[in-house]
Amino acid sequence: MKLDDWVQSVLDEVESVLQGWVPAEAPAGLGEAMRYGVLDGGKRLRPLLVMAACEAVDGQREAALRAAVAVELIHAYSLVHDDLPCMDNDVLRRGKPTVHVRYGEAQAMLAGDAMQALAFEVLTPPQGTVEPALQARLCGLLARAAGHAGMAGGQAIDLASVGCKLDEAALRDMHRRKTGALLQASVVMGAACGHPPADALAALADYGAALGLAFQVVDDILDVTQESHTLGKTAGKDLHDNKPTYVSVLGLEAARRHALELRDQARAALARSGLASTARLAALADKVVDRDC
Amino acid sequence: MKLDDWVQSVLDEVESVLQGWVPAEAPAGLGEAMRYGVLDGGKRLRPLLVMAACEAVDGQREAALRAAVAVELIHAYSLVHDDLPCMDNDVLRRGKPTVHVRYGEAQAMLAGDAMQALAFEVLTPPQGTVEPALQARLCGLLARAAGHAGMAGGQAIDLASVGCKLDEAALRDMHRRKTGALLQASVVMGAACGHPPADALAALADYGAALGLAFQVVDDILDVTQESHTLGKTAGKDLHDNKPTYVSVLGLEAARRHALELRDQARAALARSGLASTARLAALADKVVDRDC
Repeated sequence: MKLDDWVQSVLDEVESVLQGWVPAEAPAGLGEAMRYGVLDGGKRLRPLLVMAACEAVDGQREAALRAAVAVELIHAYSLVHDDLPCMDNDVLRRGKPTVHVRYGEAQAMLAGDAMQALAFEVLTPPQGTVEPALQARLCGLLARAAGHAGMAGGQAIDLASVGCKLDEAALRDMHRRKTGALLQASVVMGAACGHPPADALAALADYGAALGLAFQVVDDILDVTQESHTLGKTAGKDLHDNKPTYVSVLGLEAARRHALELRDQARAALARSGLASTARLAALADKVVDRDC
Repeated sequence: MKLDDWVQSVLDEVESVLQGWVPAEAPAGLGEAMRYGVLDGGKRLRPLLVMAACEAVDGQREAALRAAVAVELIHAYSLVHDDLPCMDNDVLRRGKPTVHVRYGEAQAMLAGDAMQALAFEVLTPPQGTVEPALQARLCGLLARAAGHAGMAGGQAIDLASVGCKLDEAALRDMHRRKTGALLQASVVMGAACGHPPADALAALADYGAALGLAFQVVDDILDVTQESHTLGKTAGKDLHDNKPTYVSVLGLEAARRHALELRDQARAALARSGLASTARLAALADKVVDRDC
Protein backbone atom coordinates (compact mmCIF):
# COMPACT_ATOMS: atom_id res chain seq x y z
CA MET A 1 0.00 0.00 0.00
CA LYS A 2 1.32 3.48 -0.82
CA LEU A 3 2.11 5.69 2.16
CA ASP A 4 -0.71 8.14 1.52
CA ASP A 5 -3.24 5.33 1.25
CA TRP A 6 -1.91 3.71 4.40
CA VAL A 7 -2.03 7.05 6.25
CA GLN A 8 -5.63 7.60 5.14
CA SER A 9 -6.65 4.10 6.19
CA VAL A 10 -5.14 4.59 9.66
CA LEU A 11 -6.73 8.04 10.01
CA ASP A 12 -10.13 6.63 9.08
CA GLU A 13 -9.79 3.76 11.51
CA VAL A 14 -8.61 5.98 14.40
CA GLU A 15 -11.41 8.46 13.75
CA SER A 16 -13.97 5.69 13.68
CA VAL A 17 -12.70 4.20 16.92
CA LEU A 18 -12.57 7.63 18.61
CA GLN A 19 -16.17 8.19 17.48
CA GLY A 20 -17.19 5.08 19.33
CA TRP A 21 -15.06 5.49 22.44
CA VAL A 22 -15.31 9.18 23.29
CA PRO A 23 -18.67 9.27 25.00
CA ALA A 24 -21.46 11.37 23.54
CA GLU A 25 -23.55 10.55 26.60
CA ALA A 26 -21.23 11.88 29.33
CA PRO A 27 -23.25 14.14 31.61
CA ALA A 28 -23.97 17.85 31.46
CA GLY A 29 -22.30 18.53 28.11
CA LEU A 30 -18.96 17.01 29.18
CA GLY A 31 -19.07 14.38 26.43
CA GLU A 32 -19.76 17.02 23.80
CA ALA A 33 -16.78 19.10 24.94
CA MET A 34 -14.53 16.02 24.95
CA ARG A 35 -15.63 15.06 21.44
CA TYR A 36 -15.12 18.61 20.20
CA GLY A 37 -11.60 18.54 21.61
CA VAL A 38 -10.46 15.31 19.97
CA LEU A 39 -12.65 14.34 17.01
CA ASP A 40 -12.36 15.57 13.46
CA GLY A 41 -9.04 17.34 13.50
CA GLY A 42 -5.33 17.16 13.94
CA LYS A 43 -2.63 15.46 11.94
CA ARG A 44 -2.86 12.29 14.08
CA LEU A 45 0.91 11.95 13.90
CA ARG A 46 1.05 10.06 17.19
CA PRO A 47 -1.46 7.37 16.16
CA LEU A 48 0.40 7.00 12.85
CA LEU A 49 3.65 6.44 14.74
CA VAL A 50 2.04 3.85 17.01
CA MET A 51 0.61 1.90 14.11
CA ALA A 52 3.78 2.11 11.99
CA ALA A 53 5.93 0.96 14.94
CA CYS A 54 3.53 -1.91 15.61
CA GLU A 55 3.77 -2.99 11.97
CA ALA A 56 7.58 -2.77 12.11
CA VAL A 57 7.62 -5.37 14.89
CA ASP A 58 4.67 -7.36 13.56
CA GLY A 59 2.82 -6.55 16.79
CA GLN A 60 -0.72 -7.06 17.98
CA ARG A 61 -2.97 -4.69 16.07
CA GLU A 62 -5.87 -4.40 18.57
CA ALA A 63 -3.50 -3.33 21.31
CA ALA A 64 -1.79 -0.84 19.00
CA LEU A 65 -5.10 0.70 17.99
CA ARG A 66 -5.94 1.24 21.66
CA ALA A 67 -2.49 2.72 22.23
CA ALA A 68 -2.96 5.00 19.20
CA VAL A 69 -6.24 6.33 20.55
CA ALA A 70 -4.83 6.71 24.06
CA VAL A 71 -1.83 8.81 22.98
CA GLU A 72 -4.08 10.97 20.83
CA LEU A 73 -6.40 11.53 23.81
CA ILE A 74 -3.43 12.61 25.94
CA HIS A 75 -2.18 14.90 23.17
CA ALA A 76 -5.64 16.41 22.64
CA TYR A 77 -6.22 16.97 26.38
CA SER A 78 -2.86 18.75 26.62
CA LEU A 79 -3.91 21.11 23.81
CA VAL A 80 -7.25 21.82 25.49
CA HIS A 81 -5.51 22.73 28.76
CA ASP A 82 -2.64 24.53 27.03
CA ASP A 83 -5.09 26.82 25.20
CA LEU A 84 -6.81 27.97 28.41
CA PRO A 85 -6.49 31.65 29.36
CA CYS A 86 -4.26 30.87 32.36
CA MET A 87 -1.83 29.09 30.01
CA ASP A 88 -1.37 30.17 26.36
CA ASN A 89 -4.78 31.83 26.05
CA ASP A 90 -5.32 30.73 22.48
CA VAL A 91 -8.59 30.95 20.59
CA LEU A 92 -7.89 28.89 17.46
CA ARG A 93 -6.93 25.22 17.23
CA ARG A 94 -7.22 22.73 14.41
CA GLY A 95 -8.96 25.47 12.46
CA LYS A 96 -11.77 25.84 15.02
CA PRO A 97 -12.41 27.97 18.11
CA THR A 98 -10.67 26.36 21.08
CA VAL A 99 -12.69 24.26 23.55
CA HIS A 100 -12.87 26.95 26.23
CA VAL A 101 -14.03 29.54 23.69
CA ARG A 102 -16.83 27.19 22.72
CA TYR A 103 -17.77 25.60 26.06
CA GLY A 104 -16.28 27.82 28.77
CA GLU A 105 -13.14 27.47 30.83
CA ALA A 106 -14.48 25.17 33.52
CA GLN A 107 -15.92 22.68 31.04
CA ALA A 108 -12.69 22.79 29.02
CA MET A 109 -10.65 21.98 32.11
CA LEU A 110 -12.96 19.09 33.03
CA ALA A 111 -13.00 17.81 29.46
CA GLY A 112 -9.20 17.71 29.46
CA ASP A 113 -9.17 15.92 32.82
CA ALA A 114 -11.70 13.37 31.59
CA MET A 115 -9.77 12.84 28.34
CA GLN A 116 -6.65 11.95 30.33
CA ALA A 117 -8.63 9.41 32.37
CA LEU A 118 -10.26 8.05 29.20
CA ALA A 119 -6.82 7.33 27.72
CA PHE A 120 -6.20 4.86 30.56
CA GLU A 121 -9.72 3.42 30.21
CA VAL A 122 -9.04 2.74 26.55
CA LEU A 123 -5.83 0.91 27.47
CA THR A 124 -7.56 -1.36 30.00
CA PRO A 125 -10.52 -3.04 28.31
CA PRO A 126 -12.19 -5.40 30.81
CA GLN A 127 -12.98 -7.78 27.97
CA GLY A 128 -11.02 -8.30 24.80
CA THR A 129 -7.86 -9.78 23.50
CA VAL A 130 -5.21 -7.42 24.91
CA GLU A 131 -3.31 -9.42 27.47
CA PRO A 132 -3.19 -7.79 30.92
CA ALA A 133 0.60 -7.60 31.04
CA LEU A 134 0.59 -5.56 27.84
CA GLN A 135 -2.21 -3.34 29.21
CA ALA A 136 -0.08 -2.62 32.28
CA ARG A 137 3.01 -1.92 30.19
CA LEU A 138 1.16 0.50 27.91
CA CYS A 139 -0.37 2.31 30.91
CA GLY A 140 3.07 2.67 32.48
CA LEU A 141 4.68 4.01 29.30
CA LEU A 142 1.86 6.49 28.71
CA ALA A 143 1.71 7.72 32.31
CA ARG A 144 5.47 8.38 32.37
CA ALA A 145 5.41 10.21 29.02
CA ALA A 146 2.45 12.37 30.06
CA GLY A 147 3.55 13.18 33.60
CA HIS A 148 6.00 15.33 35.52
CA ALA A 149 9.12 13.89 33.90
CA GLY A 150 7.60 14.17 30.42
CA MET A 151 4.93 16.34 28.89
CA ALA A 152 3.63 18.11 32.02
CA GLY A 153 7.21 18.79 33.15
CA GLY A 154 8.02 20.26 29.75
CA GLN A 155 5.02 22.53 29.94
CA ALA A 156 6.15 23.74 33.37
CA ILE A 157 9.55 24.64 31.87
CA ASP A 158 7.75 26.32 28.97
CA LEU A 159 5.75 28.45 31.42
CA ALA A 160 8.86 29.40 33.33
CA SER A 161 10.86 30.27 30.22
CA VAL A 162 8.61 33.00 28.80
CA GLY A 163 10.82 36.04 28.26
CA CYS A 164 13.97 34.04 29.10
CA LYS A 165 16.97 33.40 26.92
CA LEU A 166 17.56 29.62 26.81
CA ASP A 167 20.63 28.05 25.26
CA GLU A 168 20.14 25.19 22.83
CA ALA A 169 20.66 22.51 25.48
CA ALA A 170 17.97 23.97 27.73
CA LEU A 171 15.61 24.41 24.78
CA ARG A 172 16.22 20.79 23.76
CA ASP A 173 15.53 19.58 27.30
CA MET A 174 12.23 21.47 27.36
CA HIS A 175 11.08 20.09 24.01
CA ARG A 176 12.27 16.55 24.71
CA ARG A 177 9.77 16.61 27.55
CA LYS A 178 7.00 18.81 26.22
CA THR A 179 6.51 17.25 22.78
CA GLY A 180 9.27 14.66 22.50
CA ALA A 181 8.22 12.39 25.35
CA LEU A 182 4.78 11.61 23.93
CA LEU A 183 6.04 11.25 20.35
CA GLN A 184 8.75 8.87 21.52
CA ALA A 185 6.22 7.01 23.67
CA SER A 186 4.01 6.57 20.60
CA VAL A 187 6.82 4.69 18.88
CA VAL A 188 7.75 2.67 21.97
CA MET A 189 4.13 1.79 22.76
CA GLY A 190 3.59 0.60 19.20
CA ALA A 191 6.75 -1.49 19.44
CA ALA A 192 5.64 -2.88 22.82
CA CYS A 193 2.69 -4.49 21.02
CA GLY A 194 5.16 -6.95 19.54
CA HIS A 195 8.27 -8.65 20.84
CA PRO A 196 11.25 -6.87 19.27
CA PRO A 197 14.79 -7.68 20.48
CA ALA A 198 16.04 -5.23 23.11
CA ASP A 199 18.48 -3.50 20.75
CA ALA A 200 15.79 -3.04 18.11
CA LEU A 201 13.52 -1.50 20.75
CA ALA A 202 16.33 0.82 21.85
CA ALA A 203 16.91 1.86 18.23
CA LEU A 204 13.20 2.59 17.78
CA ALA A 205 13.29 4.69 20.94
CA ASP A 206 16.22 6.65 19.44
CA TYR A 207 14.21 7.10 16.26
CA GLY A 208 11.31 8.44 18.34
CA ALA A 209 13.56 10.86 20.21
CA ALA A 210 15.09 12.28 17.01
CA LEU A 211 11.73 12.50 15.28
CA GLY A 212 10.22 14.18 18.35
CA LEU A 213 12.84 16.94 18.30
CA ALA A 214 12.62 17.30 14.51
CA PHE A 215 8.88 17.81 14.88
CA GLN A 216 9.41 20.65 17.32
CA VAL A 217 12.14 22.35 15.28
CA VAL A 218 9.80 22.32 12.27
CA ASP A 219 6.95 23.59 14.44
CA ASP A 220 9.10 26.54 15.44
CA ILE A 221 9.98 27.20 11.78
CA LEU A 222 6.33 27.03 10.67
CA ASP A 223 5.32 29.39 13.47
CA VAL A 224 7.29 32.17 11.75
CA THR A 225 6.93 31.16 8.08
CA GLN A 226 3.26 30.19 7.76
CA GLU A 227 -0.10 31.91 8.17
CA SER A 228 -2.70 31.00 10.79
CA HIS A 229 -5.17 29.69 8.19
CA THR A 230 -2.57 27.21 6.91
CA LEU A 231 -1.57 26.06 10.40
CA GLY A 232 -5.11 25.91 11.80
CA LYS A 233 -3.74 27.64 14.89
CA THR A 234 -2.49 31.13 15.65
CA ALA A 235 0.78 31.75 13.78
CA GLY A 236 3.57 33.89 15.21
CA LYS A 237 2.37 33.00 18.71
CA ASP A 238 5.75 32.07 20.18
CA LEU A 239 7.35 35.29 19.00
CA HIS A 240 4.40 37.30 20.28
CA ASP A 241 4.52 35.50 23.64
CA ASN A 242 8.27 36.04 23.82
CA LYS A 243 8.99 32.32 24.07
CA PRO A 244 12.39 30.88 23.15
CA THR A 245 12.24 28.72 19.98
CA TYR A 246 14.72 26.95 17.72
CA VAL A 247 14.39 29.86 15.31
CA SER A 248 15.10 32.48 17.98
CA VAL A 249 18.04 30.46 19.37
CA LEU A 250 19.61 29.11 16.13
CA GLY A 251 18.23 31.41 13.41
CA LEU A 252 15.96 30.24 10.59
CA GLU A 253 18.53 28.68 8.27
CA ALA A 254 20.38 26.81 11.01
CA ALA A 255 17.03 25.58 12.34
CA ARG A 256 16.19 24.20 8.88
CA ARG A 257 19.55 22.42 8.71
CA HIS A 258 19.03 21.05 12.22
CA ALA A 259 15.66 19.58 11.25
CA LEU A 260 17.31 17.72 8.37
CA GLU A 261 20.08 16.43 10.64
CA LEU A 262 17.50 15.12 13.08
CA ARG A 263 15.65 13.40 10.25
CA ASP A 264 18.90 11.73 9.25
CA GLN A 265 19.46 10.64 12.85
CA ALA A 266 15.97 9.15 12.89
CA ARG A 267 16.66 7.26 9.66
CA ALA A 268 20.02 6.04 10.95
CA ALA A 269 18.33 4.68 14.08
CA LEU A 270 15.89 2.74 11.89
CA ALA A 271 18.79 1.24 9.94
CA ARG A 272 20.42 0.29 13.25
CA SER A 273 17.25 -1.46 14.45
CA GLY A 274 17.83 -4.35 12.08
CA LEU A 275 14.06 -4.55 11.55
CA ALA A 276 12.87 -5.27 8.02
CA SER A 277 9.66 -3.24 7.82
CA THR A 278 10.63 0.28 8.79
CA ALA A 279 9.74 1.98 5.49
CA ARG A 280 6.63 3.62 6.95
CA LEU A 281 8.49 4.94 9.97
CA ALA A 282 11.12 6.37 7.61
CA ALA A 283 8.44 7.97 5.47
CA LEU A 284 6.80 9.49 8.57
CA ALA A 285 10.14 11.09 9.51
CA ASP A 286 10.26 12.65 6.03
CA LYS A 287 6.68 13.82 6.39
CA VAL A 288 7.42 15.49 9.75
CA VAL A 289 10.28 17.48 8.24
CA ASP A 290 8.67 18.27 4.88
CA ARG A 291 5.27 19.37 6.15
CA ASP A 292 3.97 22.89 5.71
CA CYS A 293 1.35 22.81 8.48
CA MET B 1 -4.66 -2.99 67.03
CA LYS B 2 -7.21 -0.33 68.06
CA LEU B 3 -8.81 1.59 65.20
CA ASP B 4 -7.11 4.88 66.02
CA ASP B 5 -3.70 3.23 66.16
CA TRP B 6 -4.34 1.43 62.90
CA VAL B 7 -5.52 4.66 61.26
CA GLN B 8 -2.39 6.44 62.45
CA SER B 9 -0.13 3.68 61.20
CA VAL B 10 -1.75 3.76 57.74
CA LEU B 11 -1.59 7.56 57.62
CA ASP B 12 2.11 7.49 58.52
CA GLU B 13 2.84 4.87 55.89
CA VAL B 14 0.89 6.63 53.13
CA GLU B 15 2.55 9.94 53.98
CA SER B 16 5.97 8.35 53.91
CA VAL B 17 5.32 6.69 50.56
CA LEU B 18 3.89 9.91 49.08
CA GLN B 19 7.01 11.74 50.29
CA GLY B 20 9.11 9.34 48.27
CA TRP B 21 6.95 9.10 45.17
CA VAL B 22 5.78 12.66 44.55
CA PRO B 23 8.85 14.11 42.88
CA ALA B 24 10.66 17.01 44.49
CA GLU B 25 12.88 17.22 41.42
CA ALA B 26 10.19 17.73 38.75
CA PRO B 27 11.17 20.72 36.62
CA ALA B 28 10.44 24.43 37.02
CA GLY B 29 8.67 24.20 40.38
CA LEU B 30 6.15 21.61 39.18
CA GLY B 31 7.25 19.07 41.78
CA GLU B 32 6.94 21.61 44.56
CA ALA B 33 3.39 22.47 43.51
CA MET B 34 2.47 18.77 43.28
CA ARG B 35 3.88 18.09 46.74
CA TYR B 36 2.10 21.11 48.19
CA GLY B 37 -1.16 19.78 46.74
CA VAL B 38 -0.99 16.30 48.18
CA LEU B 39 1.45 16.05 51.09
CA ASP B 40 0.76 16.87 54.70
CA GLY B 41 -2.97 17.26 54.70
CA GLY B 42 -6.36 15.71 54.24
CA LYS B 43 -8.19 12.98 56.08
CA ARG B 44 -6.82 10.30 53.75
CA LEU B 45 -10.18 8.54 53.88
CA ARG B 46 -9.63 6.93 50.47
CA PRO B 47 -6.28 5.33 51.37
CA LEU B 48 -7.82 4.09 54.64
CA LEU B 49 -10.65 2.46 52.68
CA VAL B 50 -8.20 0.82 50.25
CA MET B 51 -6.10 -0.62 53.08
CA ALA B 52 -9.10 -1.75 55.16
CA ALA B 53 -10.69 -3.45 52.13
CA CYS B 54 -7.40 -5.15 51.31
CA GLU B 55 -7.17 -6.46 54.86
CA ALA B 56 -10.77 -7.67 54.71
CA VAL B 57 -9.85 -9.94 51.77
CA ASP B 58 -6.37 -10.74 53.02
CA GLY B 59 -4.98 -9.10 49.89
CA GLN B 60 -1.53 -8.19 48.70
CA ARG B 61 -0.31 -5.26 50.75
CA GLU B 62 2.22 -3.73 48.33
CA ALA B 63 -0.40 -3.48 45.62
CA ALA B 64 -2.89 -1.96 48.05
CA LEU B 65 -0.40 0.66 49.20
CA ARG B 66 0.12 1.69 45.58
CA ALA B 67 -3.64 1.79 45.05
CA ALA B 68 -4.02 3.89 48.22
CA VAL B 69 -1.50 6.44 46.99
CA ALA B 70 -3.00 6.47 43.50
CA VAL B 71 -6.55 7.20 44.67
CA GLU B 72 -5.26 9.92 46.97
CA LEU B 73 -3.36 11.50 44.06
CA ILE B 74 -6.54 11.51 41.97
CA HIS B 75 -8.52 12.99 44.85
CA ALA B 76 -5.89 15.65 45.51
CA TYR B 77 -5.61 16.61 41.83
CA SER B 78 -9.39 17.00 41.65
CA LEU B 79 -9.28 19.41 44.60
CA VAL B 80 -6.46 21.43 43.01
CA HIS B 81 -8.46 21.83 39.80
CA ASP B 82 -11.78 22.30 41.59
CA ASP B 83 -10.35 25.21 43.59
CA LEU B 84 -9.24 27.12 40.47
CA PRO B 85 -10.92 30.46 39.73
CA CYS B 86 -12.74 29.06 36.67
CA MET B 87 -14.28 26.36 38.89
CA ASP B 88 -15.07 26.97 42.57
CA ASN B 89 -12.54 29.78 43.03
CA ASP B 90 -11.58 28.74 46.54
CA VAL B 91 -8.62 30.08 48.48
CA LEU B 92 -8.45 27.73 51.48
CA ARG B 93 -7.96 23.95 51.46
CA ARG B 94 -6.69 21.58 54.12
CA GLY B 95 -6.10 24.67 56.26
CA LYS B 96 -3.68 26.23 53.77
CA PRO B 97 -3.91 28.61 50.80
CA THR B 98 -4.96 26.65 47.72
CA VAL B 99 -2.34 25.61 45.16
CA HIS B 100 -3.20 28.33 42.65
CA VAL B 101 -3.08 31.00 45.35
CA ARG B 102 0.40 29.81 46.22
CA TYR B 103 1.85 28.91 42.79
CA GLY B 104 -0.40 30.59 40.20
CA GLU B 105 -3.21 29.19 38.08
CA ALA B 106 -1.13 27.73 35.28
CA GLN B 107 1.17 25.83 37.62
CA ALA B 108 -1.84 24.58 39.61
CA MET B 109 -3.45 23.24 36.47
CA LEU B 110 -0.25 21.50 35.38
CA ALA B 111 0.32 20.12 38.88
CA GLY B 112 -3.17 18.60 38.82
CA ASP B 113 -2.57 17.14 35.37
CA ALA B 114 0.76 15.66 36.47
CA MET B 115 -0.80 14.25 39.65
CA GLN B 116 -3.36 12.37 37.59
CA ALA B 117 -0.60 10.89 35.42
CA LEU B 118 1.46 10.06 38.52
CA ALA B 119 -1.43 8.01 39.91
CA PHE B 120 -1.10 5.66 36.92
CA GLU B 121 2.69 5.65 37.23
CA VAL B 122 2.38 4.53 40.83
CA LEU B 123 0.07 1.68 39.77
CA THR B 124 2.51 0.39 37.13
CA PRO B 125 5.91 -0.14 38.74
CA PRO B 126 8.31 -1.54 36.13
CA GLN B 127 9.98 -3.60 38.82
CA GLY B 128 8.39 -5.03 41.94
CA THR B 129 6.03 -7.65 43.12
CA VAL B 130 2.68 -6.40 41.81
CA GLU B 131 1.64 -8.80 39.10
CA PRO B 132 0.87 -7.12 35.75
CA ALA B 133 -2.71 -8.38 35.59
CA LEU B 134 -3.42 -6.69 38.92
CA GLN B 135 -1.70 -3.50 37.73
CA ALA B 136 -3.97 -3.45 34.69
CA ARG B 137 -7.08 -4.10 36.77
CA LEU B 138 -6.24 -1.30 39.21
CA CYS B 139 -5.54 1.13 36.34
CA GLY B 140 -8.88 0.27 34.77
CA LEU B 141 -10.84 0.70 38.00
CA LEU B 142 -9.17 4.02 38.77
CA ALA B 143 -9.54 5.43 35.25
CA ARG B 144 -13.26 4.64 35.17
CA ALA B 145 -13.86 6.14 38.63
CA ALA B 146 -11.94 9.32 37.77
CA GLY B 147 -13.31 9.86 34.28
CA HIS B 148 -16.40 11.03 32.45
CA ALA B 149 -18.74 8.43 33.95
CA GLY B 150 -17.39 9.05 37.45
CA MET B 151 -15.70 11.99 39.14
CA ALA B 152 -15.23 14.28 36.14
CA GLY B 153 -18.80 13.64 35.03
CA GLY B 154 -20.07 14.48 38.50
CA GLN B 155 -18.16 17.72 38.46
CA ALA B 156 -19.70 18.63 35.12
CA ILE B 157 -23.16 18.09 36.61
CA ASP B 158 -22.09 20.14 39.63
CA LEU B 159 -21.06 23.02 37.34
CA ALA B 160 -24.33 22.84 35.44
CA SER B 161 -26.47 22.71 38.58
CA VAL B 162 -25.40 26.00 40.18
CA GLY B 163 -28.56 27.94 40.86
CA CYS B 164 -30.74 24.96 39.87
CA LYS B 165 -33.25 23.09 41.97
CA LEU B 166 -32.39 19.38 41.86
CA ASP B 167 -34.62 16.67 43.28
CA GLU B 168 -33.07 14.08 45.55
CA ALA B 169 -32.56 11.56 42.72
CA ALA B 170 -30.64 14.06 40.59
CA LEU B 171 -28.60 15.18 43.59
CA ARG B 172 -27.79 11.54 44.38
CA ASP B 173 -26.74 10.88 40.80
CA MET B 174 -24.40 13.87 40.89
CA HIS B 175 -22.78 12.84 44.17
CA ARG B 176 -22.54 9.16 43.23
CA ARG B 177 -20.29 10.32 40.45
CA LYS B 178 -18.55 13.33 41.93
CA THR B 179 -17.48 11.86 45.28
CA GLY B 180 -19.04 8.42 45.36
CA ALA B 181 -17.24 6.87 42.40
CA LEU B 182 -13.74 7.37 43.80
CA LEU B 183 -14.73 6.35 47.34
CA GLN B 184 -16.35 3.20 46.00
CA ALA B 185 -13.34 2.55 43.77
CA SER B 186 -11.09 2.80 46.83
CA VAL B 187 -12.96 -0.10 48.41
CA VAL B 188 -13.11 -2.14 45.20
CA MET B 189 -9.43 -1.54 44.40
CA GLY B 190 -8.45 -2.64 47.89
CA ALA B 191 -10.58 -5.74 47.47
CA ALA B 192 -9.06 -6.42 44.03
CA CYS B 193 -5.70 -6.88 45.78
CA GLY B 194 -7.05 -10.20 47.09
CA HIS B 195 -9.30 -12.86 45.62
CA PRO B 196 -12.71 -12.43 47.27
CA PRO B 197 -15.69 -14.44 45.95
CA ALA B 198 -17.80 -12.47 43.45
CA ASP B 199 -20.68 -11.94 45.88
CA ALA B 200 -18.33 -10.67 48.59
CA LEU B 201 -16.84 -8.23 46.07
CA ALA B 202 -20.33 -7.07 45.08
CA ALA B 203 -21.23 -6.55 48.75
CA LEU B 204 -18.05 -4.50 49.29
CA ALA B 205 -18.97 -2.40 46.26
CA ASP B 206 -22.41 -1.80 47.85
CA TYR B 207 -20.68 -0.82 51.08
CA GLY B 208 -18.51 1.64 49.11
CA ALA B 209 -21.53 3.15 47.36
CA ALA B 210 -23.45 3.68 50.62
CA LEU B 211 -20.41 5.06 52.40
CA GLY B 212 -19.68 7.36 49.47
CA LEU B 213 -23.12 8.92 49.64
CA ALA B 214 -23.02 9.11 53.43
CA PHE B 215 -19.77 11.01 53.16
CA GLN B 216 -21.34 13.60 50.87
CA VAL B 217 -24.48 14.01 52.98
CA VAL B 218 -22.28 14.68 56.01
CA ASP B 219 -20.13 17.06 53.96
CA ASP B 220 -23.24 19.04 53.10
CA ILE B 221 -24.26 19.09 56.78
CA LEU B 222 -20.82 20.25 57.95
CA ASP B 223 -20.78 22.98 55.31
CA VAL B 224 -23.64 24.71 57.16
CA THR B 225 -22.89 23.68 60.76
CA GLN B 226 -19.13 24.17 61.08
CA GLU B 227 -16.68 27.05 60.81
CA SER B 228 -13.94 27.34 58.18
CA HIS B 229 -11.14 26.89 60.73
CA THR B 230 -12.60 23.54 61.81
CA LEU B 231 -13.12 22.31 58.26
CA GLY B 232 -9.80 23.59 56.90
CA LYS B 233 -11.77 24.88 53.90
CA THR B 234 -14.25 27.68 53.35
CA ALA B 235 -17.50 26.90 55.21
CA GLY B 236 -20.90 27.92 53.84
CA LYS B 237 -19.49 27.77 50.32
CA ASP B 238 -22.30 25.71 48.77
CA LEU B 239 -24.99 28.01 50.12
CA HIS B 240 -23.01 31.05 49.01
CA ASP B 241 -22.50 29.56 45.54
CA ASN B 242 -26.18 28.65 45.34
CA LYS B 243 -25.44 24.94 44.86
CA PRO B 244 -28.02 22.28 45.65
CA THR B 245 -27.04 20.15 48.68
CA TYR B 246 -28.63 17.44 50.79
CA VAL B 247 -29.39 20.13 53.37
CA SER B 248 -31.06 22.42 50.85
CA VAL B 249 -33.04 19.55 49.33
CA LEU B 250 -33.94 17.51 52.44
CA GLY B 251 -33.49 19.97 55.32
CA LEU B 252 -30.92 19.59 58.10
CA GLU B 253 -32.71 17.04 60.28
CA ALA B 254 -33.73 14.78 57.41
CA ALA B 255 -30.19 14.98 56.04
CA ARG B 256 -28.86 13.81 59.42
CA ARG B 257 -31.30 10.89 59.45
CA HIS B 258 -30.34 10.03 55.87
CA ALA B 259 -26.65 9.89 56.80
CA LEU B 260 -27.46 7.38 59.55
CA GLU B 261 -29.56 5.28 57.15
CA LEU B 262 -26.71 5.18 54.68
CA ARG B 263 -24.30 4.13 57.40
CA ASP B 264 -26.69 1.29 58.29
CA GLN B 265 -26.84 0.27 54.61
CA ALA B 266 -23.05 0.23 54.51
CA ARG B 267 -22.93 -1.97 57.62
CA ALA B 268 -25.60 -4.30 56.23
CA ALA B 269 -23.56 -4.73 53.05
CA LEU B 270 -20.54 -5.73 55.15
CA ALA B 271 -22.63 -8.33 56.96
CA ARG B 272 -23.83 -9.63 53.59
CA SER B 273 -20.25 -9.97 52.32
CA GLY B 274 -19.67 -13.02 54.48
CA LEU B 275 -16.09 -11.81 55.06
CA ALA B 276 -14.68 -12.24 58.55
CA SER B 277 -12.47 -9.14 58.91
CA THR B 278 -14.71 -6.21 58.16
CA ALA B 279 -14.49 -4.49 61.55
CA ARG B 280 -12.26 -1.71 60.23
CA LEU B 281 -14.50 -1.02 57.28
CA ALA B 282 -17.44 -0.83 59.68
CA ALA B 283 -15.54 1.53 61.95
CA LEU B 284 -14.63 3.73 58.97
CA ALA B 285 -18.33 4.01 58.10
CA ASP B 286 -19.00 5.19 61.65
CA LYS B 287 -16.14 7.65 61.41
CA VAL B 288 -17.48 9.12 58.16
CA VAL B 289 -20.86 9.79 59.74
CA ASP B 290 -19.63 10.94 63.17
CA ARG B 291 -16.90 13.31 61.99
CA ASP B 292 -17.02 17.03 62.65
CA CYS B 293 -14.59 18.09 59.94
